[in-house]
Amino acid sequence: MSQFYKSSGTICAVSTPPGQGGVAVIRISGEESFAVCKMIFRPANGVFPFGEGKRKAAISFGYIFRGDEIIDEVLVSAFYAPRSYTGEDVVEISCHGSLYIQQEILKLLLTNGCRIAAAGEFTQRAFLNGKLDLSQAEAVGDLIAASSAASHRVAMQQMRGGFSNELVALREKLLHFTSLVELELDFAEEDVEFADRTQLKYLAQQIAAVIRRLVSSFSAGNAIKNGIPVAIVGETNAGKSTLLNRLLKEERAIVSDMHGTTRDTIEDTVTIDGLLFRFIDTAGIRETRDTIEQLGIDRSFQKIEQAFIVLWVIDLANDMREADKFAEQIISRKADKKLILILNKSDKLTDEELKQKTTYYSRFNEDFIVISAKSDADIAELESKLVETANIPQIGENDVIVTNIRHYEALVNAQYAVERVIVGLNANISGDFLSQDVRECLSHFGQITGHCINTEEALGNIFSRFCIGK
Amino acid sequence: MSQFYKSSGTICAVSTPPGQGGVAVIRISGEESFAVCKMIFRPANGVFPFGEGKRKAAISFGYIFRGDEIIDEVLVSAFYAPRSYTGEDVVEISCHGSLYIQQEILKLLLTNGCRIAAAGEFTQRAFLNGKLDLSQAEAVGDLIAASSAASHRVAMQQMRGGFSNELVALREKLLHFTSLVELELDFAEEDVEFADRTQLKYLAQQIAAVIRRLVSSFSAGNAIKNGIPVAIVGETNAGKSTLLNRLLKEERAIVSDMHGTTRDTIEDTVTIDGLLFRFIDTAGIRETRDTIEQLGIDRSFQKIEQAFIVLWVIDLANDMREADKFAEQIISRKADKKLILILNKSDKLTDEELKQKTTYYSRFNEDFIVISAKSDADIAELESKLVETANIPQIGENDVIVTNIRHYEALVNAQYAVERVIVGLNANISGDFLSQDVRECLSHFGQITGHCINTEEALGNIFSRFCIGK
Repeated sequence: MSQFYKSSGTICAVSTPPGQGGVAVIRISGEESFAVCKMIFRPANGVFPFGEGKRKAAISFGYIFRGDEIIDEVLVSAFYAPRSYTGEDVVEISCHGSLYIQQEILKLLLTNGCRIAAAGEFTQRAFLNGKLDLSQAEAVGDLIAASSAASHRVAMQQMRGGFSNELVALREKLLHFTSLVELELDFAEEDVEFADRTQLKYLAQQIAAVIRRLVSSFSAGNAIKNGIPVAIVGETNAGKSTLLNRLLKEERAIVSDMHGTTRDTIEDTVTIDGLLFRFIDTAGIRETRDTIEQLGIDRSFQKIEQAFIVLWVIDLANDMREADKFAEQIISRKADKKLILILNKSDKLTDEELKQKTTYYSRFNEDFIVISAKSDADIAELESKLVETANIPQIGENDVIVTNIRHYEALVNAQYAVERVIVGLNANISGDFLSQDVRECLSHFGQITGHCINTEEALGNIFSRFCIGK
Repeated sequence: MSQFYKSSGTICAVSTPPGQGGVAVIRISGEESFAVCKMIFRPANGVFPFGEGKRKAAISFGYIFRGDEIIDEVLVSAFYAPRSYTGEDVVEISCHGSLYIQQEILKLLLTNGCRIAAAGEFTQRAFLNGKLDLSQAEAVGDLIAASSAASHRVAMQQMRGGFSNELVALREKLLHFTSLVELELDFAEEDVEFADRTQLKYLAQQIAAVIRRLVSSFSAGNAIKNGIPVAIVGETNAGKSTLLNRLLKEERAIVSDMHGTTRDTIEDTVTIDGLLFRFIDTAGIRETRDTIEQLGIDRSFQKIEQAFIVLWVIDLANDMREADKFAEQIISRKADKKLILILNKSDKLTDEELKQKTTYYSRFNEDFIVISAKSDADIAELESKLVETANIPQIGENDVIVTNIRHYEALVNAQYAVERVIVGLNANISGDFLSQDVRECLSHFGQITGHCINTEEALGNIFSRFCIGK
């Protein structure tokens, strides 16, 4: 993979979350890992976890020294290349999690020839050393950031190579395809046709179908990874912030009885039933002369456009005509969003009033729910409604879902290229044009997995399969 | 150590700092550690890091499963009792540092029979299993919290047993002492005197001297551990907050040109030359009719009393008579504090004015420094002055310093007891009274190290040394 710059040197960094804790882990990777560790670490029993003849991961207890002073009592784990995370010699120092100790050990490592790793550099090395492909390497980042069962499952699936396997299968088919076409070019003067055009077309259609499935998984994938955007809109003092707090189960927004308390839009996420929702609380809508407040209200309407689900909160205790003022503005902007009308503060009404008002408001939207934000049961009902409305398909353990915008773009480009191949086959265009489109498609796949495709590889493929000389 | 409640069960907790990171470590300790781990972990090569015949710490790479679903790819380290941190069987799971994964693995451990460890419970078990004494165990907490070279060194020294060794030496001398005295009691009718009173007195004086040294190390120890308290006082707008920010090297206090910006006292720490200083910014002093501001000003004067060093900031650009108003209040409260007069904003004065004003103000206090808070060199000079004024003795690697208030109190009590022993010896009191005072002293030591002392132990000591029967 010579097209990638391979970073050099022995790198080190604190791998555990930043801050103070019982234990911190400092990771070292590179050719000098063991040598550097030997400069600052003395095992309690005199036996290093690495050294002559050792090839297996091992742990030693001992001391980190700065000169004659003990900086910490630590555990040192050693992993031999290529059987380590990066594929290089790796040392992990498990020290006491004081900031001072973490910093001093890093300083000692720097003094003894390491340099601080760039963000993601350990994983980058794992990729460059062939431990992971590019999409798997990217999934490591997603896995660490995953905060819901669904996003975790998708990232784990990708890191374990599910997505890559799908692409590798496609890629092999395409390589086979291009091999055949290019073989024809080599024997152009003899006018042979190794590649059966009908078969090729069938193959291209198969590939197009798989890409289409992957491309269309992105909207669910994106919702799973970044959260399903839910805008909460409504009149001032309709109880939007209270509702948000109930959903977030914490006092996130400042709640007050004053109108216009929330001026900035607040975003926060919560996991319901293993799905991540990203709530967008907005400034209350009302007629106002306050310029700053008006800006907030304008933004509320804009937020509707970014949402997948819109929760329109109406205060049942209010005069019914209040909601009419903004109904058009909200409904006109809802477009293809899923709108749920939330008739709030039901606890303040008599049964008779409730019936009358519910009937009145229900004409705005057929999907509505009557709640009191104070009632746990009502909040639970709203939560179920959100999950149901999001309608994200259950992710099976082996489902391949695209969550990465880079992958999505590459796939969309690959899809165009494959479709050109199909059009070309229909139009009976010559092999060299066909081959060009297939190569483009391969190069888009290569962008995802980090594989490059060159003529040698395509030829290698031909010879291994067809064994012409003989 | 049967007087301590030994907690039961297999405990687990995230040992790394809270939050998201590349790697997190989950620690499990107790009899069931390996069994529980076996329920949720499958090694990639089929070989567990623990099992029949294994007695050495080992690592395996593999997968954490929840049913059939892979939750994470992890490294599992296994440590056998008693060669582990807690002295029990210990497993450390090094997983990806996503909050979701940390939480799911903990859940799996709970489902399979672990319980969440209480704060410090791993270290408590280490103490109960005799891996550390009580003062060493306490030092683990100090070590993790240590944020300066000096506090780190003191905590490391204590954790490595430096303090305990000092106490153990004292304790052995006292045990020897009481053994002799109590032997006399057993042979009371025979009127023998095993213990030479002159020697005993010499020993008691030796012990008193060591305790005195330890007790007096506490004020330095406390300053090292919690920071040397420095109060910054002065007129409103004299530049106190700006000065604090320069010392803290960040925008901690709200700085504005309005008088009376700082109403609450702000505390923050910074390490200068390996020493921790705890700065106390205070409300500016001025005559005011604002009740809330007056409260702040009163608090400023009180803060002087809590400080070890008082920085009195004077705005050189102000009328000289301004400072006179408060000089008496500040100087009367300074008592034994170290006062440094800071003549600030020197950049706003001509050389002539500077000379005149410096002469005027210097009569308040002989220790003064002329600075512009904007000048890096001046701030550096002030920093040196602070370190010099703090006058904390350099902590050698083997110096025993008391930093813990519990230890300090126990030592003060031990000191009283030893002094009563000396008085008793001078007054020729009977052996049983002497023995009682010595035992009290021993019990105070026992509070520090967690050792208890009972008659069996004292007798055991006699027989091993004196071997009477034979």
